[in-house]
Amino acid sequence: MEEKSRASGNRYAADISSIKAAQERISPYVNKTAVLSSETLDSISGRKLYFKCECFQKGGAFKFRGACNAVFSLTDDEAAKGVVTHSSGNHAAALSLAAKLRGIPAHIVIPKNAPKCKVENVVRYGGRVIWSEATVKSREEIAAKVLRETGAHLIHPYNDGSIISGQGTISLELLDEIPQIDTIIVPISGGGLISGVALAAKSINPTIRILAAEPKGANDAARSKDSGAIVTLPETKTIADGLRAFLGTLTWPVVRDLVEEVIVVEDNEIIEAMRLCYEILKVAVEPSGAIGLAAVLSDSFKSKAAWKDCSNVGIILSGGNVDLDVLWKSLHKCV
Amino acid sequence: MEEKSRASGNRYAADISSIKAAQERISPYVNKTAVLSSETLDSISGRKLYFKCECFQKGGAFKFRGACNAVFSLTDDEAAKGVVTHSSGNHAAALSLAAKLRGIPAHIVIPKNAPKCKVENVVRYGGRVIWSEATVKSREEIAAKVLRETGAHLIHPYNDGSIISGQGTISLELLDEIPQIDTIIVPISGGGLISGVALAAKSINPTIRILAAEPKGANDAARSKDSGAIVTLPETKTIADGLRAFLGTLTWPVVRDLVEEVIVVEDNEIIEAMRLCYEILKVAVEPSGAIGLAAVLSDSFKSKAAWKDCSNVGIILSGGNVDLDVLWKSLHKCV
Repeated sequence: MEEKSRASGNRYAADISSIKAAQERISPYVNKTAVLSSETLDSISGRKLYFKCECFQKGGAFKFRGACNAVFSLTDDEAAKGVVTHSSGNHAAALSLAAKLRGIPAHIVIPKNAPKCKVENVVRYGGRVIWSEATVKSREEIAAKVLRETGAHLIHPYNDGSIISGQGTISLELLDEIPQIDTIIVPISGGGLISGVALAAKSINPTIRILAAEPKGANDAARSKDSGAIVTLPETKTIADGLRAFLGTLTWPVVRDLVEEVIVVEDNEIIEAMRLCYEILKVAVEPSGAIGLAAVLSDSFKSKAAWKDCSNVGIILSGGNVDLDVLWKSLHKCV
Repeated sequence: MEEKSRASGNRYAADISSIKAAQERISPYVNKTAVLSSETLDSISGRKLYFKCECFQKGGAFKFRGACNAVFSLTDDEAAKGVVTHSSGNHAAALSLAAKLRGIPAHIVIPKNAPKCKVENVVRYGGRVIWSEATVKSREEIAAKVLRETGAHLIHPYNDGSIISGQGTISLELLDEIPQIDTIIVPISGGGLISGVALAAKSINPTIRILAAEPKGANDAARSKDSGAIVTLPETKTIADGLRAFLGTLTWPVVRDLVEEVIVVEDNEIIEAMRLCYEILKVAVEPSGAIGLAAVLSDSFKSKAAWKDCSNVGIILSGGNVDLDVLWKSLHKCV
C-alpha cells in the first residue's frame, strides 16, 4: 500500500506531477473555493491575510479533494466492491460523496463522539455508518473487520499518496490566485492536508514558508518535530475534533522536511478565532478550521523574530462543519 | 434632490449607464463578492440556486456599494462638510467606511433598537453616532437637525439615484459570472437594492424575472404593488431588522414597473433560511439577508405555476451582520 502510493522516483508520497494530475482528475467534481480577506483582520494581525475557504468545499471541508482523487484513481476492479474508511467525520462524508459520484458503496467507521452534523453529512451522501469507540485503536480494528467482510478498498484518511495529492490541489488554486503569498498556515492532524499543501507550494515557490497549527491538547506533531521522529499521545483533549489524529509514515517525512514550525495554540484561542470568522469574515468555520487564524494571532507567532517578515499569509480554513449550539456554547463558556 | 438624482433623460433614478459608471467609480474600493452554490439546496428547492454573497462585502452588506458611489460622486465642495444619514445599521456602517476612505466626517443617526454588531461597525469605521427613537419619524427629525447644525450632505439610505446605481453593480457582477440566470430574488425594504438590481439586470436581459422577498410583518411593498401606489404601515414587526423601511419616490416606480411579484414570508421561514445558510452554505447571513432563500423555499413560490420554469435562480444574500446570540436564540425559539 505504502509503496504503491508513492509517486514514482520521488522521496515523498506525492509530488507536483501527482498533484497536477489530481487537479485534472477532480476538477469536474470539486468547488474552486473562494479566497476572502478582511481589512479588520489584517489590522488585528498586522499582516495581509488570505483565507482559503475550504468550508465552501463540497461536504463542507477540504477532505473531498483527497477522497475524490482516491476514489477516481481506483481501477474499475478495485472500485467494484466499494470503499471503507474510519474517520472523525469530514473524510467520511467526503468519501461517501466521492463513492456516490462513482456509483460504488462506502462503508464508514465513525467514532461515537463525532459531531452530529458530520455524521448527518455521511448519511446525506449515502454512506453506510458503522459505529466504533472513540479510540484510534477501536476505529482501526472495526475498519479491518469491515474490510474482511466486504472486500472493499481501504481509503486511509491521510496516510495515502492519492489523498495527499488531492489535498495539494489547494495550493495550486491559492497560489494561482494570490501569487504574492509568502507563508501558508495549515491545520495539522494526520498530516495529509499539510503534506499536499507543502509539496505543491514548495514546488511552485521554494522560498514559501509552510507553518502548521496544532491544538495544545493534541500536540503530537510539535513533539514529533522536536524529537525528530513520530510521537503519538496516549490521549488527546481539544475542542478541535478534526485534529486528534497522529502523523503517518507517509506524512511525517514531509512534515519533518518541509514544515518550518508547528505553532501550538490553546482551545480558547481557537474559539476566539471561530468567533472572528463568524463575526468578521461571515463564515462558519469549525474549530479545526479556525486554528490557522488562531495561530497567526497568537503571541508566540507575533513575537517570534523569524516570522516578522511573513507579510502575505495564506490561511487554510479547512472546514465548516460545526454544530451551531457547539459554537454558541463554546463562545459563552470560554470568551 | 430628486431631480438631480435622476439619470438624465430617463424615467427612473438610475439606468445601465449610471450603474456602469458606478462600477468604474467604486471598483477600487468594493469586494467583488463570491457566488456560492450547493447541491443540497438545489435539491431542496428543485432549482439551481446561485447565492451572491454580499455578506462578504466590506462592512458585511451590499450597502457599501451604494454608499461608496454616493460619497465618491460628491464634488469636493459638497464633500467638505461631511455626510449625514439615518439608518438601521448597514447603510450607516457603509457610509462611515466610504466617508473614511474619502477623508470626510460621517454623522450617523441610529435608532436605539439597532443590532449591536451594526452599531459596532459604525464605530469601527469612524462614524459619529447620534441616537434616535426607533420610529422613522424620529430618525428623520434628528437627521434634519444634524444637517442644519453641520451643513453636511444627506445621503438617503435608498431614495437616491447614486445609491440605486451603486447597488445595481451587483447585477453586473452576477450576470457576468452566471449568465444563464433567469430569475433574481431580492430582499425588499426601501427598494434601493432591488431597484438597482432590476434596472441593471433587465437592461442586460429583458426577459429576466425580478422577484422581491418581504417579511409578512413589514409587507408594505406587497401592499403597494396590490394597490398601485406607495403604502406605508403604522408599525412593522419582523426579525428582519433591515427590512422595516418603506418604498421611496425614486424606488417605487422601478418596483411598480420591473418587479414581477413580492413574495411574502413568515419570520419562522426566515429563521429556517438563516439556519440553512449557516449549516449548508457555511455563511453567516442576517435575517434580512436570508429572506431570498426563504422565499424560494416557500410554499407560495413552489406552488405558483408562473414560477415553475424559474430554473436558474440568483439569490442576493444581502448582508451578514447578525449577533450570534440573536441567531442562536431565534433558532431555539422558532424551529
